[in-house]
Amino acid sequence: MTHEFETALQARIDGKTKPLGALGRIEALAAQIARAQASLTPRMEACRLILLAGDHGIAMEGVSAYPQAVTRQMVLNFLAGGAAANVFARQAGIPVTVVDCGVAGPAIADARLLSRRIGPGTANALHGPAMTRAECEAALAMGQALAREGEFDALCLGEMGIGNTSAAALLAAKITGSAVAGFVGRGTGLDAAGLARKGAVLAQAAARTAPRLGGAEALAEYGGFEIAAMAGAMLGAAEARRMVLVDGFIAGAAALVALDIRPEIKGHLVFAHRSAEQGHAALLAALGVEPLLDLGLRLGEGSGALLAWPLLRASAAMLNEMASFESAAVSGPA
Amino acid sequence: MTHEFETALQARIDGKTKPLGALGRIEALAAQIARAQASLTPRMEACRLILLAGDHGIAMEGVSAYPQAVTRQMVLNFLAGGAAANVFARQAGIPVTVVDCGVAGPAIADARLLSRRIGPGTANALHGPAMTRAECEAALAMGQALAREGEFDALCLGEMGIGNTSAAALLAAKITGSAVAGFVGRGTGLDAAGLARKGAVLAQAAARTAPRLGGAEALAEYGGFEIAAMAGAMLGAAEARRMVLVDGFIAGAAALVALDIRPEIKGHLVFAHRSAEQGHAALLAALGVEPLLDLGLRLGEGSGALLAWPLLRASAAMLNEMASFESAAVSGPA
Repeated sequence: MTHEFETALQARIDGKTKPLGALGRIEALAAQIARAQASLTPRMEACRLILLAGDHGIAMEGVSAYPQAVTRQMVLNFLAGGAAANVFARQAGIPVTVVDCGVAGPAIADARLLSRRIGPGTANALHGPAMTRAECEAALAMGQALAREGEFDALCLGEMGIGNTSAAALLAAKITGSAVAGFVGRGTGLDAAGLARKGAVLAQAAARTAPRLGGAEALAEYGGFEIAAMAGAMLGAAEARRMVLVDGFIAGAAALVALDIRPEIKGHLVFAHRSAEQGHAALLAALGVEPLLDLGLRLGEGSGALLAWPLLRASAAMLNEMASFESAAVSGPA
Repeated sequence: MTHEFETALQARIDGKTKPLGALGRIEALAAQIARAQASLTPRMEACRLILLAGDHGIAMEGVSAYPQAVTRQMVLNFLAGGAAANVFARQAGIPVTVVDCGVAGPAIADARLLSRRIGPGTANALHGPAMTRAECEAALAMGQALAREGEFDALCLGEMGIGNTSAAALLAAKITGSAVAGFVGRGTGLDAAGLARKGAVLAQAAARTAPRLGGAEALAEYGGFEIAAMAGAMLGAAEARRMVLVDGFIAGAAALVALDIRPEIKGHLVFAHRSAEQGHAALLAALGVEPLLDLGLRLGEGSGALLAWPLLRASAAMLNEMASFESAAVSGPA
């Protein structure tokens, strides 16, 4: 943004009928949205949730508390409108698109489901690449195209995939060039023994490749399809000048990938919440961001992104609708 | 609540299609709402904002960065729909009632304003009681009656009154029996010299009375009318089994008063956000609560309460609308 734009933006925020800076992060968020749209009167009315599902070969190593079948069962739950993401989306009037990026087993026959299957789940990243380079590129491009379609101002991205905290931990480790142990957490609720096992499996999987990898390379090595699609969707949304509400741990790993590919999209990303998943703190630190909410969530599905959406809308409305000291004839400081 | 109710409530939350505890504070909030309504299917659809304005005699001591006239000007801004509270309320579909509890000068003639004037501002609490016991009781009863009227599930309470961080600091000090210095902050934006002056004025005002006072007594000594009405509104809302979204520093002081009068209403109060006003941390610690949001707000008007409202609605919806593992045929942990 030009110096003129920044000056005009700050003057517009400071002219509103409130003490200087009194709306804290709402002011910062309004400024971020204004910059992303290159407009002093940004539009922030329509939001969408894209819910991406995929399975992970590494799930067979016992890295999750839940069986792999839950990915598919939860897709059906999403389609029936019964999951947390559906409930939160309904409350906020946000339409939901459920995408099969590669759930294990045969394709799910349901007209409400967007079938964009890259394969029937990724390969087991413990022993080799989770996906081929071609699959990785296809998943990225698929997400990118999805996020460019339609008419909306902000995109919530959610995911479902048993084993995907493992994939996300490996991605975060490889892209930041640090030990995977710092990103290993309990996921859906591993006990101490399960957590130890997961840590050992991930350390072994990480040892397969160089300590530091580029975003796309790490993605192909460790997956998954839904994470690749999510990273692609961040790129596509930014191209369309949309804001992206980045959910928790998995979405944060996707953001690391997307920002490695195209660092300049960062202004389009809003980090929605601090997850209770161990490792998210390290991931947020690596991204250099402070999320909006801290509610102890660790569900995924875009649930935290959906809960943060009203803050984006309110921020833009502040900029567009609040009176100025001048227009409302309110006195400034004595 | 009975043991049976608690068991049924926890079973209902734990049966939802999510890992145990994965919705963090949303689960705790849902449980709080369920208890307050004594219902496993609580209703949380309609919210109101009551915006209470009043002036403070102590403002003449130069404890605020803004002139007293701003209280009246902001009331007109509220009526015109141009303040932050109006904007946030519109976004959330929340009707706003503006109440003149005692703005300095003549009564404001405007049909949209609810005139419930206790007087033309409080007396200067530096030299004597801000209000008489009769005024204090009238203000409490007025707020209490207001919050019992109408049909809604949750109440956001906002305030406007130049000088009211001073009143709130004195209330917090007297009700907790601690030094007022710990509650003194910059309010609307005092500089270092202004802050020192405010600290000296408040220390002198505090020295007038015993170190520890009961809620109603402290209220009469230090005011103001809008804070008394707000404390009364908390009592009234709880009687009507409503939830109250407690905004920031001023509302927190009103909560101290209300809880001193009737400790059993605590389950009806939801603390919306951590204010950037110095002293709010100490106030929250005295209340023993952890607010939902931490966005660096320090505006008042109920702005933080309004931003937290969608979380209440989402919490109740989670309880009412989310599928169970059983109903959605989703597998539990392996």
